[in-house]
Amino acid sequence: MKPNFSLSGMPDYNSLKMKKRLYVLSIIEEQFKLFGFLRIMTSSIEKRSNLFGSYGNDGDKLIFQILNSGEYLSKIDLDVQKINSNELSPLISNKALRYDLTVPFARFIAKNQSDITFPFKRYEIGSVFRADRPQKGRLRQFVQCDADMIGSTSLWFEVDLINLIDTVFSSLKLNNVVIKISNRKILEGFFDTFKRQISFNDFCVIVDKLDKIGLNKVMSILLDKGFSTEDVKIIEKIFLLDSDFINKKKYIQKLVASNDKLVNGFKELDFIFNNTSCQNIVFDLSLARGLDYYTGSIFEVTTLNNKNGSLLGGGRYDQLTEKFKLNNISGVGISFGLDRICLELESLDLFPKDISIQLDCLFINFGYENSQYLQSYITQLRQYGFSVELYPESVKIKKQMSYANKRGVSYVLMVGEEEIKNKKISIKYMDNGIQESLVFEELIKKLESNNE
Amino acid sequence: MKPNFSLSGMPDYNSLKMKKRLYVLSIIEEQFKLFGFLRIMTSSIEKRSNLFGSYGNDGDKLIFQILNSGEYLSKIDLDVQKINSNELSPLISNKALRYDLTVPFARFIAKNQSDITFPFKRYEIGSVFRADRPQKGRLRQFVQCDADMIGSTSLWFEVDLINLIDTVFSSLKLNNVVIKISNRKILEGFFDTFKRQISFNDFCVIVDKLDKIGLNKVMSILLDKGFSTEDVKIIEKIFLLDSDFINKKKYIQKLVASNDKLVNGFKELDFIFNNTSCQNIVFDLSLARGLDYYTGSIFEVTTLNNKNGSLLGGGRYDQLTEKFKLNNISGVGISFGLDRICLELESLDLFPKDISIQLDCLFINFGYENSQYLQSYITQLRQYGFSVELYPESVKIKKQMSYANKRGVSYVLMVGEEEIKNKKISIKYMDNGIQESLVFEELIKKLESNNE
Repeated sequence: MKPNFSLSGMPDYNSLKMKKRLYVLSIIEEQFKLFGFLRIMTSSIEKRSNLFGSYGNDGDKLIFQILNSGEYLSKIDLDVQKINSNELSPLISNKALRYDLTVPFARFIAKNQSDITFPFKRYEIGSVFRADRPQKGRLRQFVQCDADMIGSTSLWFEVDLINLIDTVFSSLKLNNVVIKISNRKILEGFFDTFKRQISFNDFCVIVDKLDKIGLNKVMSILLDKGFSTEDVKIIEKIFLLDSDFINKKKYIQKLVASNDKLVNGFKELDFIFNNTSCQNIVFDLSLARGLDYYTGSIFEVTTLNNKNGSLLGGGRYDQLTEKFKLNNISGVGISFGLDRICLELESLDLFPKDISIQLDCLFINFGYENSQYLQSYITQLRQYGFSVELYPESVKIKKQMSYANKRGVSYVLMVGEEEIKNKKISIKYMDNGIQESLVFEELIKKLESNNE
Repeated sequence: MKPNFSLSGMPDYNSLKMKKRLYVLSIIEEQFKLFGFLRIMTSSIEKRSNLFGSYGNDGDKLIFQILNSGEYLSKIDLDVQKINSNELSPLISNKALRYDLTVPFARFIAKNQSDITFPFKRYEIGSVFRADRPQKGRLRQFVQCDADMIGSTSLWFEVDLINLIDTVFSSLKLNNVVIKISNRKILEGFFDTFKRQISFNDFCVIVDKLDKIGLNKVMSILLDKGFSTEDVKIIEKIFLLDSDFINKKKYIQKLVASNDKLVNGFKELDFIFNNTSCQNIVFDLSLARGLDYYTGSIFEVTTLNNKNGSLLGGGRYDQLTEKFKLNNISGVGISFGLDRICLELESLDLFPKDISIQLDCLFINFGYENSQYLQSYITQLRQYGFSVELYPESVKIKKQMSYANKRGVSYVLMVGEEEIKNKKISIKYMDNGIQESLVFEELIKKLESNNE
């Protein structure tokens, strides 16, 4: 059996995959900048206690914990045999890998509050880690692209974020996406109108499973949890209604009694729907998002067929920094899932066609003196902005040309005795096989005009 | 006492620091591309067994180990109380954070060997992790920028890498750097000429400490390790000689007897010195580099005063992929240390002066209807490529202007009733305080001409 040195669920990206990822990142990052976000970076490792308790019980289990260094056992005074892993872990691990970019951001704000100009808009692009069962579009390490606006409850933040989402996906030519929006206050006000035996958070966790387990199962879980048959029917009706925001709002207001949370939540949604010019935004009451920290708006982007899971999630949080002893900082943010966006673009064949071009010029190696002669050409071509290589060994030309083909070289350059005598360079255009001899200045002109 | 939620030695970068880091990265990455390197990405987490044993005993201690998930204790069958941490760790941890980008690269090659076109030139930029004592210029998480060329023993690779190093540092305007170069074969051949009781690897580890503990201490350690007083004097003389490559080579050949390793090592260095046009390259026999895997050329870049430690390290390795059951793959690579390069640029004030410009345009918020009116301007300005924000709340103008100042805004834009009536926009140039009213097309022209 071939030995396996790789871990399952951990990503490696080859250069073609990387080019595709960087293409997506460049579009996201360009828009982040145009919308006024500033890039920061937080460490991949956090205090264990910063993370545990922030993502619910299910989340805690997915946190990668880092073993303390040195003789960590000598520092603990317990009968290790009698305790279980959950009890031992906090004793031998005080660090963990970040689970998302939001909690580290909250810590960052609390730490740097005196240096930050509020309102503060930051973006961060980085890997996060979850000890989840690996599946398509969800590895154990994946890249999130987060943009958050904090320090104001202004709903113009929400409007701007929806414009940002819309711009990014249309720049990526992903026209089949739906921007789902809801508000925790509405869901909670809605929840409050029913008799039930579970907490609102548990209700969110159940509703959040809708996409995965389907409406029927969710409804039968709610029945199990003490909801009446009538109430479950109302919930089902509302979740099933396919209409625009105004109609859905009216329908909910007709079917359940009003309360403050419903009124406030709808007021917020009214603001957003009245002020966005985005066409593919949809109100979806069943949008719960599992994360405990959302308190207002909730966003999610999926494709029409929802094959690769959600491409983006986000929402408003009022208490996020309280864990770090900083109160009254409201913020709202979104997180693009790079991996899933790439999967989606791949399946729709939406990556630019020229993304595989790998190298502009390859010089054929005709031996030591010849290679010495080429050095100044190589340096000059690079100074003109062309990527250039010399094949490292003077092997048969066939082998060098085969490398050029596999490598995706645009121009093969050859300087034999004849060319040295005439101060010329032979160029072979790899797309059509045409060959010609040019002096250096002509070569540059050709390459530059072909680049346009 | 204020609670501390941050871990010591773990980095956070605010937006200004990030801009500086991205400036350096953009220069490094541009040159990597021009030299024909392709970007890949490997996961931050590796199998524990891939890392342990690759960096010597001292290195092993610095590896961050990741605790297994779930009920990891139930799977082991040992008297935990009687074993020490070193014995327990491999039983409860099968994953670890990468220590550098080189070993993961070797694993990547072995895994993808059938898909890779050799010779293969890749670059990777990413964080690595070491449980070291935090110090200036060396945190526990830091970014390495690696470029490696594998699949050929051609010394043109070395020549090209030196050109690359030279180009990057001169593009950064860091003119006070010295590119030190040596060859493990020379050091080993040199070592072989002496009577001694230590291995060559131990000798390298001792010599590698030269910068930290000084020549006298290194010499007294060698005496302790069984070197004769005469031999130590020869070593000292050679290490102290300040001259060019040719003279140093002659001096070594005069003072010690020749052997195959010395001959071969010098032949390789001859090739490199004969073919690089780089001016600040220096042969330094005492250059050992601690890492076990180097077998040929060794590179290091320091500044003349060597205040912030080495800015780059690298070398040739012939057996790196053997750990992953792939033999006969020689490669050579370099690794730029982003953090230290940034420290160096900071201390010499070499970052571009305009690096702090943070936002092009801020619209003053004059209330709800006014903000609604501004939305299409905001969208259009962003489409023209300018970063734009609306202040999120209609607070006093003084407060909004104070935000604009702190935020580093270039242009404050105001659209009051008068402007709406005349279809104009008032612009305040924040650098000189001048204010004027323009129609949208004039505004775009002004902004574009100011950007040039």
